[in-house]
Amino acid sequence: MNVAAIPTINSDRLQDAIHQLASIGALPNGGVCRLAFSDEDLQARKLVEFWMMEAGMDIHIDVAGNIIGRYAGKSISKSTSMGAFATGSHIDTVTVGGIYDGCLGVLAGIEVVRVLKENSIRLNHPLEVIVFTDEERSVIGSKAMAGKILEQANYYSRLDGTSIQSCLEKIGGDWSKIQTAKRDKSEIAAFIELHVEQGGVLEHLNLPIGIVTGVVGQYRFAVNITGRANHAGTTPMNMRKDALVAASQIVLAVNKIAVETPGEQVATVGYLNVSPNATNTVPGNVDLRIDIRDLSEEHLENLITKIRNEITAIGMKTKTEITIQQTLHIKPTLAAPKIIHTIKEVCQQLNINSTQLPSRAGHDAQEIGRITDMGMIFIPSRGGISHAADEYTSPEECTLGANVLLQTFLQLDDILSD
Amino acid sequence: MNVAAIPTINSDRLQDAIHQLASIGALPNGGVCRLAFSDEDLQARKLVEFWMMEAGMDIHIDVAGNIIGRYAGKSISKSTSMGAFATGSHIDTVTVGGIYDGCLGVLAGIEVVRVLKENSIRLNHPLEVIVFTDEERSVIGSKAMAGKILEQANYYSRLDGTSIQSCLEKIGGDWSKIQTAKRDKSEIAAFIELHVEQGGVLEHLNLPIGIVTGVVGQYRFAVNITGRANHAGTTPMNMRKDALVAASQIVLAVNKIAVETPGEQVATVGYLNVSPNATNTVPGNVDLRIDIRDLSEEHLENLITKIRNEITAIGMKTKTEITIQQTLHIKPTLAAPKIIHTIKEVCQQLNINSTQLPSRAGHDAQEIGRITDMGMIFIPSRGGISHAADEYTSPEECTLGANVLLQTFLQLDDILSD
Repeated sequence: MNVAAIPTINSDRLQDAIHQLASIGALPNGGVCRLAFSDEDLQARKLVEFWMMEAGMDIHIDVAGNIIGRYAGKSISKSTSMGAFATGSHIDTVTVGGIYDGCLGVLAGIEVVRVLKENSIRLNHPLEVIVFTDEERSVIGSKAMAGKILEQANYYSRLDGTSIQSCLEKIGGDWSKIQTAKRDKSEIAAFIELHVEQGGVLEHLNLPIGIVTGVVGQYRFAVNITGRANHAGTTPMNMRKDALVAASQIVLAVNKIAVETPGEQVATVGYLNVSPNATNTVPGNVDLRIDIRDLSEEHLENLITKIRNEITAIGMKTKTEITIQQTLHIKPTLAAPKIIHTIKEVCQQLNINSTQLPSRAGHDAQEIGRITDMGMIFIPSRGGISHAADEYTSPEECTLGANVLLQTFLQLDDILSD
Repeated sequence: MNVAAIPTINSDRLQDAIHQLASIGALPNGGVCRLAFSDEDLQARKLVEFWMMEAGMDIHIDVAGNIIGRYAGKSISKSTSMGAFATGSHIDTVTVGGIYDGCLGVLAGIEVVRVLKENSIRLNHPLEVIVFTDEERSVIGSKAMAGKILEQANYYSRLDGTSIQSCLEKIGGDWSKIQTAKRDKSEIAAFIELHVEQGGVLEHLNLPIGIVTGVVGQYRFAVNITGRANHAGTTPMNMRKDALVAASQIVLAVNKIAVETPGEQVATVGYLNVSPNATNTVPGNVDLRIDIRDLSEEHLENLITKIRNEITAIGMKTKTEITIQQTLHIKPTLAAPKIIHTIKEVCQQLNINSTQLPSRAGHDAQEIGRITDMGMIFIPSRGGISHAADEYTSPEECTLGANVLLQTFLQLDDILSD
């Protein structure tokens, strides 16, 4: 391929789109509030649909409310025999979100199609840009497409308590048919999501591109420690059953196991409540939550075994009673080696430095990766900050990420059309 | 002294008094709510004043609202030349208190006077039984008698926020003259308080009497740890500043220093708050409180230096910023050796096993010990429980304690009248 002839992202057009979308639900502090199913979300969806049409895509809203914009492939006969390439992300935000999280993935996808169209390029594969429904809370859109929706409608709710079931209709979905949203590899041959890192690894390494090796699996545990509340003055040290001393040992054991075990796992005690929480009372009870994430399910299981053993020993040593309850289990999704390889090749060709890293936050790609080959491209988040008004990624970084996405689809199209 | 002739506590009468007093403010769970200055407190004070009169005491309410019942000494001329012996405690309770804490000390004092009167005994010293005002919250009664009241009236308040200043009048006190409540050794030659242990040492050792070596001094510190709140998924272990990891190290360092340093100190982290306290966020800030108690001010200072050094090292190691603010400093009060010795002699004569131990809770004796010779007699608390409805000490244990109090005054009267 002649380097001079490489089709290229229009940086200004991409930035315009990001800032136009950010104006819907904009907050005075520079952040954005666009909760799924809100008026702002509905308005933003309309704008994105408009842009998709303008870029030459056909639009379909599936029963989960996902917006699927489809840019047809080169030859109708050939493309019907092969699944689509897909990209995209989400445009809903947390209560105070940044303007790049999710939106970049959708808008870069539309920009890729715009570039293809203005260069009169059609891939062998159709190319879909997907806006997944409610990634920030229920992940209902990508879960439905992966066929992972539970039967119990009341499991899925919005922040204000209203049911997702009751909200789907206003974005064009239909809860009663939600199970039919499932797609498979014959329909989607590969899914690649561009996203800001939401962490500080790329900035720390001063690298513009991260090639995601997979989205980590996640376990959560609720741990309750019962000691004996007692007078902090009159209870000698050797007669105490101090629940906070036991809890502190658990916090440090979890941290030590995460730090010292070879691997890239993270483990955190982010929540801890002491009872009765009075300066002159030996703590009688502590409630804490452990969160553990890693790319390997087997490695996660080993870590959890280590942590459980430590907790048992701590209970004995501190004469406290400790219960452990698992509250969450999300399995890891690995990126497809051929997508990782193609992104890496693209970076080398474009003289872009990159590194491979896991995604330790959840993404729609995690769900779609359960039904087809998945890949993700990360670009830096300043200060590792996300889900906050000061989330920031420079225009140059956004453009570079979108160019890598574009070139990856072009090359993958060659590889997979053989 | 002929053992058969020893005047002896009337166990039934003492129990009757305890249970009659307990009926004022009685709670359905067996506990009692008699907050200082409440209607229940006023009613209880009237009953105690009635019993004091009945036992032959003259009653005086001082400007701090303390009830001082005085049983005159043997010879008016001789007794005016010597200070009084005093005993007593308090009859106010915490919100849900037990029926022995404080009340036992007052009622045993009255019972001692009843026994002296019915045996037609007068000591060389006058004997005062004192009900100190509001021990459970402001300790205003004994502090005033020790001359330790701060000028700022608004420093002293009730649980509901009303000022002590405004309440004193209804129990016969007068805030404007509060500094005149101060007494000295010429007025009170010795003060001995009988109290339930409120801890589990005596029960653990299976001993009926504890001879208090002093009331511990107490320091409190507010510690604030600032790390950096961050995503628990996307922040690698080596890029964290986890305030809860630092806090856990502090909790364990405080515990280790208290456990491993030779001595009888106690140190506790009873209060700890995590922020933002979310399962998927690395803790950014922790607020905790340290409480340290010991009989020796010098030892306390050494412990605090150790703890401060550990905290500094933890701050460096965890890359967190830690501030330490002292919020309380109460100096220890040692019991007078001659009173300890006399109580010990009495126990030996009565064939009662005893041990010496510090009081790690505050008591009126701690304040009165600042102006005169002080001693305390502890009797067991079942399960070490106090400030709770199931606080319990058996009638036999109460009687034994009151007998030791009676005999101690009898013998001390001989010793100090020479």
